[in-house]
Amino acid sequence: MTRMPDPFHPSRRAAGVQLPIIPTVAGWIAETPGTVSLGQGVAYYGPPPEAMRVLGGFASSPASHPYKPDAGLPELRKAFEEKLRAENGIDAPFERRILVTAGANQAFFNAVLAICDPGDEVILLTPYYFNHEMAIALASCRAVCVPTDESCRPRVDAIEAALTPRTRAVVTVSPNNPTGVVYSRETLSEINRLCARRGLYHISDEAYEYFTYDGAEHFSPGSLGGGEHTISLYSLSKAYGMASWRVGFLVAPERLFDDLMKIQDTVIVCAPAVSQAVALGALRTGRGYCRERLETIDRVRREVMDRLSSLPGLLTVPPAQGAFYVLAKVRTGMGDLLLTERLIREHRVAVIPGGTFGITEACCLRIAYGSLTPETAAEGMRRLVEGLRAILGG
Amino acid sequence: MTRMPDPFHPSRRAAGVQLPIIPTVAGWIAETPGTVSLGQGVAYYGPPPEAMRVLGGFASSPASHPYKPDAGLPELRKAFEEKLRAENGIDAPFERRILVTAGANQAFFNAVLAICDPGDEVILLTPYYFNHEMAIALASCRAVCVPTDESCRPRVDAIEAALTPRTRAVVTVSPNNPTGVVYSRETLSEINRLCARRGLYHISDEAYEYFTYDGAEHFSPGSLGGGEHTISLYSLSKAYGMASWRVGFLVAPERLFDDLMKIQDTVIVCAPAVSQAVALGALRTGRGYCRERLETIDRVRREVMDRLSSLPGLLTVPPAQGAFYVLAKVRTGMGDLLLTERLIREHRVAVIPGGTFGITEACCLRIAYGSLTPETAAEGMRRLVEGLRAILGG
Repeated sequence: MTRMPDPFHPSRRAAGVQLPIIPTVAGWIAETPGTVSLGQGVAYYGPPPEAMRVLGGFASSPASHPYKPDAGLPELRKAFEEKLRAENGIDAPFERRILVTAGANQAFFNAVLAICDPGDEVILLTPYYFNHEMAIALASCRAVCVPTDESCRPRVDAIEAALTPRTRAVVTVSPNNPTGVVYSRETLSEINRLCARRGLYHISDEAYEYFTYDGAEHFSPGSLGGGEHTISLYSLSKAYGMASWRVGFLVAPERLFDDLMKIQDTVIVCAPAVSQAVALGALRTGRGYCRERLETIDRVRREVMDRLSSLPGLLTVPPAQGAFYVLAKVRTGMGDLLLTERLIREHRVAVIPGGTFGITEACCLRIAYGSLTPETAAEGMRRLVEGLRAILGG
Repeated sequence: MTRMPDPFHPSRRAAGVQLPIIPTVAGWIAETPGTVSLGQGVAYYGPPPEAMRVLGGFASSPASHPYKPDAGLPELRKAFEEKLRAENGIDAPFERRILVTAGANQAFFNAVLAICDPGDEVILLTPYYFNHEMAIALASCRAVCVPTDESCRPRVDAIEAALTPRTRAVVTVSPNNPTGVVYSRETLSEINRLCARRGLYHISDEAYEYFTYDGAEHFSPGSLGGGEHTISLYSLSKAYGMASWRVGFLVAPERLFDDLMKIQDTVIVCAPAVSQAVALGALRTGRGYCRERLETIDRVRREVMDRLSSLPGLLTVPPAQGAFYVLAKVRTGMGDLLLTERLIREHRVAVIPGGTFGITEACCLRIAYGSLTPETAAEGMRRLVEGLRAILGG
């Protein structure tokens, strides 16, 4: 007897996308009251209060509520054009190159849809940002994963070796999620040149551009003059504490702009206008808002690094000078998902398991410290260190 | 000499999507000051003021700004569950069947990605809602267009004849954009049963559910107990004047929920929290908010219908008892795009050309009356009637 196929099966592309890990971890946390979360990928602060002062005027103006231009509010795009020129060395006229999206995830998905057809390949560097891998699968394309070196830095020769006639783009994330590594100007330039030479797009995700420490400097490959093949992604979620507001920016070659507008119209019409209004206020406040708060995050970061260095036999951490993440490679045969669940349930401390970032050959845990106070960081790290010792017998 | 292919070409799927018409028409309007727009697909009013009163508290609470659950705020989903049960006869537990999206467009795109792989087919009834056709193309799928009858009502036999082994869904929009036709309970039930029998999803777009006139009644096919195969889409953009806020709802079979969560996480993480907070206030205000304003819209509608009936030799209009659209079929050999441009540039009145809704065999114009006052409606229709007479010599 043969079994009839289920006519209502989900699409293969959806079935092939990994289940997002955050809701799973959030579920374990919810079941374990008092858990300190080293999982949350946000900064500890909210949007600039002066930016939110626009809300009253926005709400009471009748012109606020109908649809807005697909590409975003012109004044917001103009402000971002100026920010790009001043801070990133990117010269991108907003009318033809800048699109406001509902977060950098939507920006990435739009970009993939604009350049990739089913079966096309996109190079991700492992460990990758999980939503990138998910977006590529959802577009019925293939993420080709290229391992980074032992310090989680890109290996340009390995990238080049992975290219095929189906490759359409190489993705870099610097400062990196999940490793916290800041890629050097030289490496990013080399990747950008490789892309130009091989007829590929370079998608540069710069959501964490403001989060660098120890003198590390962020570099934007879009400043190299590769206006023909560089796609740069930005987010206000981290720098301005606006995660729930969903505002990001897609800076694209002019040749893609009309297609990106079609995609934007189809997916969301326009980014939420109320969030765009607050975003404009945030950009006017400027990066000083983040810089003033970076010292607190850096203090927490040092605490985290200090505690991790007390476990040299148990784990190693690649040098991390950016974002608000470190990736701990744990010396154990235990699965990362099980270890994470036990850390939460038995020691009330949450991290994100490395498998979700494409790490399959080792047990890694991502530790996020952006949302912590020095006190919760100390307590969370105490639990993590004790938990790892207790579970793994270190 | 052969020409080298451009390595930076956009994807075929993006190239295959029609350019959105609204920005084009908006461009002509911007170049023609004083134009009355009969193009805008929104109601004349904004969100309930009492709903927007949450903004101050939302902004000042630190818990408002980090990411929210992918599926939406539980209290908002719960409120929508109750609305569905009370108003639509749909019994859908929010935990497993209701997802908050950034507008009904995103809900539709999520649904297509959840059930369709490249090459799959989705049945649209022409004239169709253009963003549906665009979403299907963007998903590398094929929109199979089935003409409606002379009164723009679905022909179930024609739908059945268009099914192939690749068909995955049939889409209905009632009350309809662009025709204003309200589909009968019988017809929608017949389509829903056909889908069940043939193993297809029925995607029912109900964005205009509150906008019915002359005693016409909206019917939700999701109330037929087809919780296994009916996907229902809703929007707050029209009923609550919240277009720029981007809030919609996707009500799906439970079997699709996990896949829809992956898609949501990838595309947007979560709908903007500030908009969800206002949406909750809107749902608590309830449909009475829209009902009180419907009389004004109905008055404008009668004005529009009256004026159109003064041109029987020049155009015909199918009976329209819903949404805030009528579709005028103009007796001319002139192209709809040219006619639209001339109406704007020469007579300062804007409509949307029928081609964007898939109408290729006739010159049709969509007239939207939801955003007008009785005064602007009278002036707009005067210009339209005079313009059509002048251009077409009626």
